[in-house]
Amino acid sequence: MDLNIVQAAEQLLYADDILLLAHRSPDGDTIGSCFALYYALRGIKKRVRIECADPFPRRYGYFTEGVFFSEFEPRFIVAVDVADRRLLGEKDACYPNIDLCIDHHLSNTGYAARRLLDPSQAATAQLCFSLLSEMRLPITPQIADCLFTGLTTDTGGFRFSNVTAQTHRIAAELMALGCDAAGINRQMFECKSRSRIQVERLAMESLEYAFDGRCALLCISQKMRESSGACEEDLEGVAGLPRQIEGVWVGITCREREEGYRISLRADEHIDASAVCRLLDGGGHKQAAGCTLQGDFAAVRAKLLDTLAPFIRAAQDQPS
Amino acid sequence: MDLNIVQAAEQLLYADDILLLAHRSPDGDTIGSCFALYYALRGIKKRVRIECADPFPRRYGYFTEGVFFSEFEPRFIVAVDVADRRLLGEKDACYPNIDLCIDHHLSNTGYAARRLLDPSQAATAQLCFSLLSEMRLPITPQIADCLFTGLTTDTGGFRFSNVTAQTHRIAAELMALGCDAAGINRQMFECKSRSRIQVERLAMESLEYAFDGRCALLCISQKMRESSGACEEDLEGVAGLPRQIEGVWVGITCREREEGYRISLRADEHIDASAVCRLLDGGGHKQAAGCTLQGDFAAVRAKLLDTLAPFIRAAQDQPS
Repeated sequence: MDLNIVQAAEQLLYADDILLLAHRSPDGDTIGSCFALYYALRGIKKRVRIECADPFPRRYGYFTEGVFFSEFEPRFIVAVDVADRRLLGEKDACYPNIDLCIDHHLSNTGYAARRLLDPSQAATAQLCFSLLSEMRLPITPQIADCLFTGLTTDTGGFRFSNVTAQTHRIAAELMALGCDAAGINRQMFECKSRSRIQVERLAMESLEYAFDGRCALLCISQKMRESSGACEEDLEGVAGLPRQIEGVWVGITCREREEGYRISLRADEHIDASAVCRLLDGGGHKQAAGCTLQGDFAAVRAKLLDTLAPFIRAAQDQPS
Repeated sequence: MDLNIVQAAEQLLYADDILLLAHRSPDGDTIGSCFALYYALRGIKKRVRIECADPFPRRYGYFTEGVFFSEFEPRFIVAVDVADRRLLGEKDACYPNIDLCIDHHLSNTGYAARRLLDPSQAATAQLCFSLLSEMRLPITPQIADCLFTGLTTDTGGFRFSNVTAQTHRIAAELMALGCDAAGINRQMFECKSRSRIQVERLAMESLEYAFDGRCALLCISQKMRESSGACEEDLEGVAGLPRQIEGVWVGITCREREEGYRISLRADEHIDASAVCRLLDGGGHKQAAGCTLQGDFAAVRAKLLDTLAPFIRAAQDQPS
């Protein structure tokens, strides 16, 4: 059942012993939104904790560190920024019944009993800002930091096409409420480890073009990661690189992992990345989507290009 | 004489046959602000034209192309986003008397008869937005595009520490007025030519560290530019790269040109880039400044590091 902001706010205000679930490989929006809700609901003396299949990356330490979650049997389970319950990772099996889902992904599969879904919002954090305002809970500087983190990370620092006037208005309000916008942006976008610099250089050497330059493809092998000393966190945002090249409609980044290749697609308006990835058992947004593929790189590459080909052809046939 | 917004607005409303001057090597803020004023003043039937020592880069074509400037003897000359009259380049000698300067650079030398200077503004475009509002001139979608361009380029896409709540509020207003924020951001930040990708790769190979990693230094030689086919425009924003590396206080980019090395400094709060560059006969903002140095690269490099050394030592001696 779909709820509006008022109904979702009521649900959260009535609930107690609340478990907030972030998606696996957590990003700024899922963690930022969870912690904003956590601090706000703790502020009105509710028992709350957050769970995630993967550890919180160090870079979000300014709001995740020093928090101690109490143990309790959850009575109200909320998935935050989770489009598909499989994205809960190993938490999926632990919590078969999700009471509420708060999300902004168009591809949301409707797995929860109730959901607050608004794909027009640039970030789930934007939705959480409205939710906290509706609940009349104070937005402390710390909560403003959490929400700003979600907002800025899901919009590539206010650069992507999902940004609306409303996004900037909320950013202005969060700054007025005392969030450390410059510090957060610097931490998120302007801080690359030496390992990241090194792995990026190696990866750029693997750069190749397909479909007359409409597609650019990058591969980050285990070997590159090992020689550069880059960890998973060092690779954040690397998926945006091939898409930035002039004339490229879709940028593909393949990251070799133990379980196979983790594929990220970033597309412009010519290609629906989410539709491409759905064919490969993945999902996401129209302009940013992903999937996981097994096999060696040559096979993965061939499968990707085969799947992509009809989309490229269809876009080429469109009058521009 | 320093003017406030009301006084500057009056001056512009009374003036006619207005010449707007952009600084040499024009960036989004100087051109965006000039064209915003141009379109707005043309809208009330004033004669206006823009001059600049260098051609307008192609990337700003969405508001510069198709404009025809009429010839006339200027009766009111306005320098826009020009901190020092030397930055007028070859236009400096043509116009010894500047009637009004509209600027946000703290280092503004006060060369004009009157100036509207507000260093708290993230961009001169932010000041021009207030000026147009004060003059009650309509902000068309085209003017909004010009102002948004200045705003987003001078704030690194709303990421830098010069961004205030007011900056986001103006961005929201400009979006509501119909500017193509996503298209502009994409054009400014998400579009690299293949030559740029190539020259960036070559430049990153020259990356070196100094002062225990507090300084990162990058050199882009003529040879790199030639082998990659990169033009001046392809290098825009490249100065931000070394500063992004973890632990780096100041990133230096040296671009070899016919007249010598064009040096760009990008610093965090530890170093005053503007103070360093002033010692080298340059200038700018605290966190982004520049100068030009003659000599071969070894000499330029030595001079830079010698000048920087006391600043690094002073910062190291500060309690953190």
